[in-house]
Amino acid sequence: MDLTLSRPKLISLAAGFTDNETLPVSEAWELLRELLGRRPTGEPAMQYGSTVGLPALRAQTAARIQAQDAATGEGRLHADLYAPDTTLLTHGSQQLLYMVTEALCDPGDVVIVEDPTYFVFLGILQSHGLECRGVRLESDGLDLARLERVLERLKREGRLPRLKLLYLVTYHQNPTSTTTAFAKKAAALDLLRHYERAAGHPLYLLEDAAYRELRFAGPDTASALAASGGLGRVIYAGTYSKPFATGVRVGFGLLPEPLRTAVTRVKGNHDFGTANLIQHLLSRAIAEGVYDRHVGRLRSRYATKAAGMTAAMRRHFPREVTWEEPRGGMYVWARLPRGVRAGARSELFRQALAAEVLYVPGRLCYADDPTRRAPDSEMRLSFGNATEPDIRTGITRLGKAIHATL
Amino acid sequence: MDLTLSRPKLISLAAGFTDNETLPVSEAWELLRELLGRRPTGEPAMQYGSTVGLPALRAQTAARIQAQDAATGEGRLHADLYAPDTTLLTHGSQQLLYMVTEALCDPGDVVIVEDPTYFVFLGILQSHGLECRGVRLESDGLDLARLERVLERLKREGRLPRLKLLYLVTYHQNPTSTTTAFAKKAAALDLLRHYERAAGHPLYLLEDAAYRELRFAGPDTASALAASGGLGRVIYAGTYSKPFATGVRVGFGLLPEPLRTAVTRVKGNHDFGTANLIQHLLSRAIAEGVYDRHVGRLRSRYATKAAGMTAAMRRHFPREVTWEEPRGGMYVWARLPRGVRAGARSELFRQALAAEVLYVPGRLCYADDPTRRAPDSEMRLSFGNATEPDIRTGITRLGKAIHATL
Repeated sequence: MDLTLSRPKLISLAAGFTDNETLPVSEAWELLRELLGRRPTGEPAMQYGSTVGLPALRAQTAARIQAQDAATGEGRLHADLYAPDTTLLTHGSQQLLYMVTEALCDPGDVVIVEDPTYFVFLGILQSHGLECRGVRLESDGLDLARLERVLERLKREGRLPRLKLLYLVTYHQNPTSTTTAFAKKAAALDLLRHYERAAGHPLYLLEDAAYRELRFAGPDTASALAASGGLGRVIYAGTYSKPFATGVRVGFGLLPEPLRTAVTRVKGNHDFGTANLIQHLLSRAIAEGVYDRHVGRLRSRYATKAAGMTAAMRRHFPREVTWEEPRGGMYVWARLPRGVRAGARSELFRQALAAEVLYVPGRLCYADDPTRRAPDSEMRLSFGNATEPDIRTGITRLGKAIHATL
Repeated sequence: MDLTLSRPKLISLAAGFTDNETLPVSEAWELLRELLGRRPTGEPAMQYGSTVGLPALRAQTAARIQAQDAATGEGRLHADLYAPDTTLLTHGSQQLLYMVTEALCDPGDVVIVEDPTYFVFLGILQSHGLECRGVRLESDGLDLARLERVLERLKREGRLPRLKLLYLVTYHQNPTSTTTAFAKKAAALDLLRHYERAAGHPLYLLEDAAYRELRFAGPDTASALAASGGLGRVIYAGTYSKPFATGVRVGFGLLPEPLRTAVTRVKGNHDFGTANLIQHLLSRAIAEGVYDRHVGRLRSRYATKAAGMTAAMRRHFPREVTWEEPRGGMYVWARLPRGVRAGARSELFRQALAAEVLYVPGRLCYADDPTRRAPDSEMRLSFGNATEPDIRTGITRLGKAIHATL
């Protein structure tokens, strides 16, 4: 961010910001006019709410996730898991992830993550003194055989009693754009359940669905809540910020008890509850269909930008660079030939910066897991915030830098 | 809160909510209309900001505190301490308090607090495994001789190296309404400095100024930033929520380095930064004078409500009950005769509840300090949220309950 501010010519393909042009400015204005135009609706929006969050928005949230899961036809839905009482509203889904970590984990505990995974949460985990073990990703989610191997190894090492969480970014993953198949979530839950006896406590699956609504190709997939092993073991984290407006930071979690009570207590300590005005704004946006219409527009816009980015990559990147076409989210994960380094101290990163283009080195997305060597020849490219001309220019510059490095 | 929701007849003199009728609903709407009426101002408000917060609002914040301190004529101002670069914006001042605790304290550390103090922060400290030592309050702030005694005792016990913070709610304190004299802040800082050598690290004064702008009688007092011992040792926490609207949760801190950098890192992990829309709203409210006009109205309203509450207390409470007239904030601290218990399990609390009136038992505001016995014959009464008729009815009911208990 600092780099972006101090170098106005720099094209950042690094930031996870959303698209400026699509921000629903006039829509928010209309909704706020209705909300604040009358004191009976205006006063509650300007007053404290409760720590768990606005009841109407909690009900809308639970109902939305249930409807999304039901529409996939996958799994079997337990209505209890999609109730306002399981739902907690937060200042972005980041805050939920943070509070779950605080409520559940002590220094020295173990969390299993995807290899690679969302690097900010990785930073949170590791700064809390937690040990992260990575499980390789396949094109439809984590490699189950490897997950079992990690669990076996933890058992052998006597570390299972310190395992608390399996953290998966299940939809259009940050950074790889991978979506986890429902069958894999169900199988992962079964595996966790199998090792619970040796752990001596529940092993939770923390499902980070931040990018679920930003799908622009292919069918939706049911969440882990719909898996038979999901009862009491799945924490579902989502957000309204990225699909609507990142300046309106409201995220949410669906959590089983006693975890929801514990996390709510942490929330009370953090800030008493999410700023009420923006919760009322979102609740109204959903109730009036403004939110869904906006998400529809955003999807087609991101589809176009993603296609523009990968078209430019096909044209300007060497043949040896590979990637999967994103079906949602805002990232393309580019793999360079083995041996080509892309890290923050690499020749490539330096050359890219000299050419005024910024990417996220893939290495940052790998946990400090001593049991394997982290790859350093990948990069995360975001088509979220940059304009279409900037994406083309940025990819052209980056292509030159890669060519020069190979 | 749960109690209030489930018993509609209950008059709560417990909640620290602000006055519904004075909420600046139409003012907020006007400001949002200007903000969101044009895309050049609307887009930044709807997009992510930076972790430290909106630059304009940081500059306004630092300048306001500097002007407030300058206007008192007390102390000597170091311009460096009132700079945008020392300022961090948060989701309410509560979040700042929480993050300072996280950044600075480890389980087993010691924090010195006022006896009594703000009970929510006390809960945060104690839930982080911190030991709290209480220092008796006088009518102009903490008893300096007792502060020295606590420091001496910590030194004797070899616990000084674990001391991290002195936490003071310096303006119209929650719960007692006491304002700390500037000379006492300066003396407390000098005392802390004196013990730093034995501690082996900086001893910070965390000055919680949440109620500073809600002053309705008497002159303002300079913050600890203006004391000569304040350089590099004062963390100043404030809020825009209570003076403007609690649904617009924006607080702030002025922090010395390296603490500001450390706390900013924690903020990045919590939520990346405060919701941008509400920061833009507040910045505009301040720039256009809407904020100050609103604070003026709020002050005269609270002055009236406070006078109404204490008038009713003089009429309906037994003579043996004593209190100080509040000069700001939203609380009256009532002291019952020694031996009359007011705690959550007391006969008085039970009778008050049966009569449909709720107060905060004073005992909750005392730390679990093993070196002294905590009083249990006080109550915190809030005139913030209840209407004037409800305040009169509530005090009448409470008076009857106290009479019955004596």
